[in-house]
Amino acid sequence: ISSKLPDVGTTIFTVMSKLATDCNAINLAQGFPGFDCFPFLHDLVTKYISEGYNQYAPMSGVPIFKQRIAEKTKLVYGVDFNGESEVTVVSGATEALFAAVTAVVRPGDEVILLEPSYDSYAPAVVLNGGLPVYVSLNLPDFSVDWDKVKSAITDKTRLIMVNTPHNPCGYVWTQDDLNTLAELIQDREIYVVSDEVYEHITFDGRKHLPLFSHPLLKERTFACGSFGKTFHITGWKIGYCLAPEKLTIEFRKIHQFLTFSTATPLQYALADFMVEPSRYLHLNDFYQNKRDLFCQGLKNTPFEFTPSQGSFFQTVYYGHLSQESDYDLAIRMTKELGVASIPVSVFYHDKTDHKLLRFCFAKEDDVLEKALDLLQKPF
Amino acid sequence: ISSKLPDVGTTIFTVMSKLATDCNAINLAQGFPGFDCFPFLHDLVTKYISEGYNQYAPMSGVPIFKQRIAEKTKLVYGVDFNGESEVTVVSGATEALFAAVTAVVRPGDEVILLEPSYDSYAPAVVLNGGLPVYVSLNLPDFSVDWDKVKSAITDKTRLIMVNTPHNPCGYVWTQDDLNTLAELIQDREIYVVSDEVYEHITFDGRKHLPLFSHPLLKERTFACGSFGKTFHITGWKIGYCLAPEKLTIEFRKIHQFLTFSTATPLQYALADFMVEPSRYLHLNDFYQNKRDLFCQGLKNTPFEFTPSQGSFFQTVYYGHLSQESDYDLAIRMTKELGVASIPVSVFYHDKTDHKLLRFCFAKEDDVLEKALDLLQKPF
Ligand SMILES: CSCCC(=O)C(=O)O
Ligand SMILES: CSCCC(=O)C(=O)O
Repeated sequence: ISSKLPDVGTTIFTVMSKLATDCNAINLAQGFPGFDCFPFLHDLVTKYISEGYNQYAPMSGVPIFKQRIAEKTKLVYGVDFNGESEVTVVSGATEALFAAVTAVVRPGDEVILLEPSYDSYAPAVVLNGGLPVYVSLNLPDFSVDWDKVKSAITDKTRLIMVNTPHNPCGYVWTQDDLNTLAELIQDREIYVVSDEVYEHITFDGRKHLPLFSHPLLKERTFACGSFGKTFHITGWKIGYCLAPEKLTIEFRKIHQFLTFSTATPLQYALADFMVEPSRYLHLNDFYQNKRDLFCQGLKNTPFEFTPSQGSFFQTVYYGHLSQESDYDLAIRMTKELGVASIPVSVFYHDKTDHKLLRFCFAKEDDVLEKALDLLQKPF
Repeated sequence: ISSKLPDVGTTIFTVMSKLATDCNAINLAQGFPGFDCFPFLHDLVTKYISEGYNQYAPMSGVPIFKQRIAEKTKLVYGVDFNGESEVTVVSGATEALFAAVTAVVRPGDEVILLEPSYDSYAPAVVLNGGLPVYVSLNLPDFSVDWDKVKSAITDKTRLIMVNTPHNPCGYVWTQDDLNTLAELIQDREIYVVSDEVYEHITFDGRKHLPLFSHPLLKERTFACGSFGKTFHITGWKIGYCLAPEKLTIEFRKIHQFLTFSTATPLQYALADFMVEPSRYLHLNDFYQNKRDLFCQGLKNTPFEFTPSQGSFFQTVYYGHLSQESDYDLAIRMTKELGVASIPVSVFYHDKTDHKLLRFCFAKEDDVLEKALDLLQKPF
């Protein structure tokens, strides 16, 4: 059998998590919390499972859950979505991204990807016959180079993929970014798939600006969200897509044939859990403390860095110290220092090596402190 | 936005389930059990959720779960699969089917679909640029017309989709069917996606023959299974794919970008639950009783039928009584008699109307008895 994705090998997340386990290293590589969700959420799952909520959910999601997602969106961003016709529950944000790309992209369509970018974007485009057009983010702050984006747009451009707060770099889009994107696409049929899974994790008083907070962008955007990142349940695989009804209709046609529906008892449990806004609004402070702790400790290491603006990732630069490739260094640091990270080159299609490593700081404070101790050693 | 699936409207399962609710009718339409799983399975989920098994599972599935699936396959069918490299856990059999089709089908490839066929097959093919080639099953027994299949094969044929036991018709493939398929494809590069979600539900002493029980077919087949149908948990959305390593590698490349992984606590719970083979092996008897009860009662109705060989569906014929379309009749029977069914024409790409309705008999006996009473009335 010949491969439709010949360049895809074992994902770096699997590679590094396995290596971390084998080396008994601290795993700051794959992005998942090193702590559990609130126990009340356990109780809610037990309740719904034992009450027999175990058969198919409606294809687009449990109605009360879709309603609550719409209410949260209104409360946090002041933007209206209709729970019944504009919110779709899916099996994780990865499915939301794949379904949205599939709804839009046809063979020959060009899709703008801002690099570094999460590893599922390009395969989703390629599997739909689309042509990724790569535009690099500015260094060192990973802001968007709008001149480059403008020159990348052609008559074949059909989609741009956005990620704010950004994984791996933590850049958070500004109102200027939203306005500029809106201007660029307003007279063309270009859609937006926006990965906003870290929406509740921004720092230093910054506020996440969802793309749908801009009226023109709202009409064009599939906004992909995740409960895994927000409630410390990355293993539950519950995500959602917000999009205007016309786009939602096409999104659901794809979702219907990808997975049809998503785990029923988990949807009911989350619908109950999320009624209390503090359960997601406290995240900014919770992770700000961790980012501060981590960045404070990094000052005692040889790395250079600018503090992350959002997400639970911090990238660091080591090019002034060594010319070793980031991939080799990440492997060696796991083995020799006992701390696993992700080499940022894996987020570039051509593996551009900017001598950057990504650390996940969604870990208990003592784990972060131990890792920071180890990172002080010369490598 | 122009639709990539212009012919897809609201799925018949949603339409009929909603109509059944609105009319307070007995819902024998959408295929899901009208009873819950064993309470012990609830306890296992509670255990794993509260013990903190809430972060990402490995991309291809929790190792012990994959191992158990391989052990079950060996025990029931005597066929070896390597749990680590040939079993992949996915978010429901729908995902397994989509991922397998996507792994194989490229633009211009022809894919043979045996009609009537489940509604997700053709869209999966079309979204990958493939061309469905439809071959009708024989009436009235829904056996495979191998001459027709043979004439449908061309140099462009890359895949055939198989479903045994068959939804909606209950036909169970024989050893002759397996042998004939193997002969037809052995000298060509044709793969098989086999939907075997009703593997543990066969009647009258018939045994399900998985396609991988034939050595040549094993090398070519993606076998798609489901725990939803087997453990009465259609809402948990846990399925799996068995395939030789070379095919599994390509399957996982797709799964990685469709959903990445599947709900962790549910995987652990099922791994524990399935160690006791009687928990799935009792299903044949359990559903044989329901099929017998249902078919016994159908004798007092004006419908004609041949008892289902497998699955939890029974189709019935009414063409000797009325020329009304099956779609109109299904709607009208829901409203006027209070019993919802699925018109079989929806499983044909051109909506061929053979005057057949499909009933799901995975319901409590008293529900089936009440439905059978209602079905005795003239319609
Ligand atoms: C789905 S595994 C990767 C998790 C993640 O989002 C990351 O580490 O970037
Ligand atoms: C995924 S909803 C449809 C369930 C089913 O398999 C059927 O009714 O045929």
